[in-house]
Amino acid sequence: MRVLKVILILLVSFGLQAQEHPNLVLTVEGVESMRSSLGSAPFFDQTVADVRQQVDAEVKSGIDVPIPKDLAGGYTHERHKANFFTMQKAGVLFQITGEEKYARYIRDMLLQYAEMYPTLDKHPATRSYARGKFFWQCLNDANWLVYTSQAYDCIYDWLDKKIVKKLNEELFRPYAEYISIENPQFFNRIHNHSTWGNAGVGMIGLVMEDEELLQWALYGLDMQVPGDYVKDNDGGAIQLEGQKEAGFLAQINHAFSPDGYYTEGPYYQRYALYPFLIFAQGLTNKKPELRILNYRNDLLIKAVYALINQTNTAGEFFPINDAQKGMSLASRELVNAVSMAYHYGGNDPQLLSLIEKQGRVPLNDSGLSAAIGITEGKSQPYEFNSLELTDGANGDEGAIGVLRSNDLTLMMKYAKHGMGHGHFDRLGFLLYDGAEEVIQDYGSARWVNIEHKDGGGYLKENTSWAKQTIAHNTLVVDKDSHFDGKVDDAEKSSGDPYFFSTSDKVGIVSARELNAYKNVEMHRTMAVLEIDELEKPLVLDLFSVQAPPGTRYDLPLYYMGELMSTNQKVKTNSDLLPMGRESGYQHLWLEGQADAAGDLFRMTWFDNMNFYTVTSVVSPDDKLLFTRIGANDPSFNLRRDPGLIHRRTSGSTLFASLYEMHGRYSYADEIPINSFSSINNVEVVDASEKYMALQFELKSGEQYQFVFSLKDDRSSSQHAIGSGDARLTWTGVYDFRKLDK
Amino acid sequence: MRVLKVILILLVSFGLQAQEHPNLVLTVEGVESMRSSLGSAPFFDQTVADVRQQVDAEVKSGIDVPIPKDLAGGYTHERHKANFFTMQKAGVLFQITGEEKYARYIRDMLLQYAEMYPTLDKHPATRSYARGKFFWQCLNDANWLVYTSQAYDCIYDWLDKKIVKKLNEELFRPYAEYISIENPQFFNRIHNHSTWGNAGVGMIGLVMEDEELLQWALYGLDMQVPGDYVKDNDGGAIQLEGQKEAGFLAQINHAFSPDGYYTEGPYYQRYALYPFLIFAQGLTNKKPELRILNYRNDLLIKAVYALINQTNTAGEFFPINDAQKGMSLASRELVNAVSMAYHYGGNDPQLLSLIEKQGRVPLNDSGLSAAIGITEGKSQPYEFNSLELTDGANGDEGAIGVLRSNDLTLMMKYAKHGMGHGHFDRLGFLLYDGAEEVIQDYGSARWVNIEHKDGGGYLKENTSWAKQTIAHNTLVVDKDSHFDGKVDDAEKSSGDPYFFSTSDKVGIVSARELNAYKNVEMHRTMAVLEIDELEKPLVLDLFSVQAPPGTRYDLPLYYMGELMSTNQKVKTNSDLLPMGRESGYQHLWLEGQADAAGDLFRMTWFDNMNFYTVTSVVSPDDKLLFTRIGANDPSFNLRRDPGLIHRRTSGSTLFASLYEMHGRYSYADEIPINSFSSINNVEVVDASEKYMALQFELKSGEQYQFVFSLKDDRSSSQHAIGSGDARLTWTGVYDFRKLDK
Repeated sequence: MRVLKVILILLVSFGLQAQEHPNLVLTVEGVESMRSSLGSAPFFDQTVADVRQQVDAEVKSGIDVPIPKDLAGGYTHERHKANFFTMQKAGVLFQITGEEKYARYIRDMLLQYAEMYPTLDKHPATRSYARGKFFWQCLNDANWLVYTSQAYDCIYDWLDKKIVKKLNEELFRPYAEYISIENPQFFNRIHNHSTWGNAGVGMIGLVMEDEELLQWALYGLDMQVPGDYVKDNDGGAIQLEGQKEAGFLAQINHAFSPDGYYTEGPYYQRYALYPFLIFAQGLTNKKPELRILNYRNDLLIKAVYALINQTNTAGEFFPINDAQKGMSLASRELVNAVSMAYHYGGNDPQLLSLIEKQGRVPLNDSGLSAAIGITEGKSQPYEFNSLELTDGANGDEGAIGVLRSNDLTLMMKYAKHGMGHGHFDRLGFLLYDGAEEVIQDYGSARWVNIEHKDGGGYLKENTSWAKQTIAHNTLVVDKDSHFDGKVDDAEKSSGDPYFFSTSDKVGIVSARELNAYKNVEMHRTMAVLEIDELEKPLVLDLFSVQAPPGTRYDLPLYYMGELMSTNQKVKTNSDLLPMGRESGYQHLWLEGQADAAGDLFRMTWFDNMNFYTVTSVVSPDDKLLFTRIGANDPSFNLRRDPGLIHRRTSGSTLFASLYEMHGRYSYADEIPINSFSSINNVEVVDASEKYMALQFELKSGEQYQFVFSLKDDRSSSQHAIGSGDARLTWTGVYDFRKLDK
Repeated sequence: MRVLKVILILLVSFGLQAQEHPNLVLTVEGVESMRSSLGSAPFFDQTVADVRQQVDAEVKSGIDVPIPKDLAGGYTHERHKANFFTMQKAGVLFQITGEEKYARYIRDMLLQYAEMYPTLDKHPATRSYARGKFFWQCLNDANWLVYTSQAYDCIYDWLDKKIVKKLNEELFRPYAEYISIENPQFFNRIHNHSTWGNAGVGMIGLVMEDEELLQWALYGLDMQVPGDYVKDNDGGAIQLEGQKEAGFLAQINHAFSPDGYYTEGPYYQRYALYPFLIFAQGLTNKKPELRILNYRNDLLIKAVYALINQTNTAGEFFPINDAQKGMSLASRELVNAVSMAYHYGGNDPQLLSLIEKQGRVPLNDSGLSAAIGITEGKSQPYEFNSLELTDGANGDEGAIGVLRSNDLTLMMKYAKHGMGHGHFDRLGFLLYDGAEEVIQDYGSARWVNIEHKDGGGYLKENTSWAKQTIAHNTLVVDKDSHFDGKVDDAEKSSGDPYFFSTSDKVGIVSARELNAYKNVEMHRTMAVLEIDELEKPLVLDLFSVQAPPGTRYDLPLYYMGELMSTNQKVKTNSDLLPMGRESGYQHLWLEGQADAAGDLFRMTWFDNMNFYTVTSVVSPDDKLLFTRIGANDPSFNLRRDPGLIHRRTSGSTLFASLYEMHGRYSYADEIPINSFSSINNVEVVDASEKYMALQFELKSGEQYQFVFSLKDDRSSSQHAIGSGDARLTWTGVYDFRKLDK
């Protein structure tokens, strides 16, 4: 590693001549283009006008640089945050418009920061493993530096040289040192926190042409993290096992899989992506020889596509792991990212339609390029396709599978744990009908930045509920979470992709989980089937388990909406008690239960003008439990969402269900269309360690059959099960067919 | 009455010469205009295209006239319903396009009905007080006749005369007799059911030029309703006390107040309005001398405006009384009504903007007129204003008050009970922030037409929960509903309007309820105040009660959204029990409670990107109860919505609260703005039988004072309360002012 470092240092060292500013995110030539394009790319003009309005309001209300005091959501926190956002925008406006009021605003604010900086000790709040200066954690200080370095670059040549010297020496260099060498437990990790730290230090290094800072940023610090730092506040390890490198390039190496998937999931990928891309943009401008955007087969551009592909039709990210629902392609990070992917990734016209929906562009070369593309009518609809995104730096540590068919989106997760922000949700899934959640992932128990809710940070119910297995649509064994709820154990292995396939009418995702429980092998297979007789695709869910007799299974389904009817006799309770004491059960009320009768359980619910039905094969002693989230919730932190738990005590077994999306109803015309299930019968024909075979019959009489090989994924293998008239044969992993009447 | 009847009979009797068809809703001249306008009014063309698509699909799938069997939601019910809608549209298409396939479709279907009709006994379902033929209740049969008579009119001249004779004699006349003279308990009421009956019989009478049917329709039957019919299925009385008239004109006399308010509320007004207007349109065309649209000072047009004014900014009706939420100006009834109001009510350009939102027009003179108005660019935004709508045929039986300010809409109800569909909700209110419910009315416990839910009819929880007082935002005394939950008692009196006033910055609605509880006088005053220092209007709620000592009060608040924080120490329960056995309490879980400490209770909640705060003055022994709907709900019929109950045991007292709408938060930027209350303090300065005085202080330091006279509503009266420095004097019912610092 050390030899490589020396070579790279040579590659990236600054030339003898200082380059002209701006040259970080903006360039002199780029600014010229922007100025000359004003008035000809309406989308860009509109963004300039919007940003000018925001910044003018801030300039008018005056500069405030308060002594740091509050946590997130509190005044001093939000003020310093607003300050760096505004400075960054003001810098761009100064370049585009030439109006000096914007430059003065930045200068005067920076001088106030420079006055205050030497007077500050660590932030008074002691919650963080890496306390900051302006903020309670170094992470936010790094945010400040990422944004502020851009503003500084924009006024660098305009500033009096003495002021530059003062700011460089009294504010920026010491501040960069603070979040790097003074806090290696923050800076030298493989983690999104460190990515921000690396980017902030690197970007200010580029602006000041401070070689040392840039080296730290790119390659990490050549120092050990003191041994007393073991975990961060989220329970994530400070040093990964066997970690051999640090710094920005190491982040790219480790954070993403070759497909651009980020192990913490899309919510944090969105957050982490901004420093990756904005620093990469600075490096592209100032150190083009690094070819940072081509690094690891164009990985950073791939990461943008990976994010885009982890959304519902409203552009909202799948809320897996710690994630606040509703975060979407509309976020400021993605406004930057998608335009960058357009500009540097080959001018993909499909990205322009996403940018149109974002409604704004970044004020830089990428944004101008996108705005011109839109003006020229190049925009095309983005085609969301089914795909599997591998996890792990080498792409061999699990994956997520995304199946799409018309408006249906199904995602199954069999990736790595996702470090401190991971949930115990192996083989869990979520299902969307367009933008609407049909089967939800709870997301995190957190109201990000909303001070009412414990300062806007993670709530204790995030650990006691949201991370637990019972909070997810996957199998719970013996009322205990996967890996006994232990992050360290979960981190040691990943889910195991078995089969992923999409054809014209059949999409299949199949994966195993062998480590979550001792002596239990779980293998879930989900299929999205386009059936001629049905108005929407049908989802098939086959959850096969190999386990000792007497194992108790709970398979939850967090359906969204109002229960319409079930075919079972449900007894509701007149006294609600929590369903357990731990592993998340303590947060569930048991509203009612049914002892399964007959061969099928069927339940229809209604949400947002559509009907949905689950039909499950049941065994004689199965129970259906109707739950409601919200027990042991002293601060009303949890949503009162409904759930259904399919409970079974058995040895090796197969859970088989069909999910239908059907019909519609509008409150203005009150005419229900197709409000009932179209499934007449479902039958498990075969279930063994090696095979599963299912038949189902529509109410219109058609019969379909799905067979699957659980132990042999070769496409050429011949399979046969049953005998005589019941003998079924096929080639390859699966077969799906309509049976002759 | 009898003399008047003879005169009117003379007025409306048919001339000797048969008029040319169509002449009911369409006219020969109108059809000419429509044909010649095709291609020049895009809005009309679009509707024609949409309707043609719908009808062509039905024509293609073939005619089905099944033997009646099912309740609402079931196949035969929905099929016959689809048939009449399609026939009506096909008739219009035949006239506009001249394509005979549409005429043949109607003819062939009518002949099948004519074949089936003589074979039918009453509908096999026995639930209704007035069982129909094609449907389980005469009401739906009347619907059929209202729509089908329009279709019949469109092909009347095209049909073979022998077929006309057959249809008239074997289908329409007997069917009209069935829902009139054979079911006087249905036809001769003052009720929306009868309005449909009157319209159906009258319209087919107009088409067939059957004088007798028209007389029955306009003036009712000269017969007694058999004494064994007392109540309908909703508990409404078949004959009103002292009822002296029946028929269509009597419906207009009784159903609406002079302001056009309909005592059952907007949900049923919408439903009832269609037969009122469509029959009126037929009468206007065929019996212009009746001047039906000018009857009672243009009452039917006023009724359309009254409906429009009972909506939130999304055009959804206030869900008071039995009402399914979401019913709106987009309904087919309102598509007809708003265009009619435009065409016959003076071409009000503000109505055109509502029609544009509806996205379609009725295919008749009114629709064409509106489409041309839109094409000519005449559309103007509809201005929603504060207003009071009186209830009662003479406008002296209570009212509802609507206060609007910017996006805020507040409605308080102090009207009549609303007959069988009324709720026990005197002095209740609801509050909207734009289209969003801030404080909700539960609406009805019903999924209209959705067969899963008890055939789509009213659920038993509608009576046990939705109608009860505790389900509304108004005062419950001693855990019993108003009027002890008895409709007959509630019908005997109405709420008592005290004061309604709107000025530039202050809107006030104030009303009394003296009969709901024995020995309890309730007087609620709500004000919407525009305060310079606040971003949105502030709502003041002063609920004054005069009652004996030891009275137990529960004042519920059904806030929508997620609880963010309260200033009180709330103890949540680990075992949930229903809060009572009756009067709706049996459906509430008690999630938590707080013993009021200090002088104020404050709670902030979040919904749909906005924050809301209630601040209430509390007394030492007050309790705050945190409730959740859903107990004793064996079929999961109730929504799990939260509630807050302010409980107090006392004699005469005043409940004083402020409601703030404030701030915003988006999931894509995660920056909360103004998420905390701006109210620093609230104090009741005076509360007596005669006066109320309240002061409140903003966090920014400003103090405001509101004083109100409860017993003297003259604008000239001088009032004084307190003494010395605390002396307050003012003129008129109220005074609101900012205090000098």
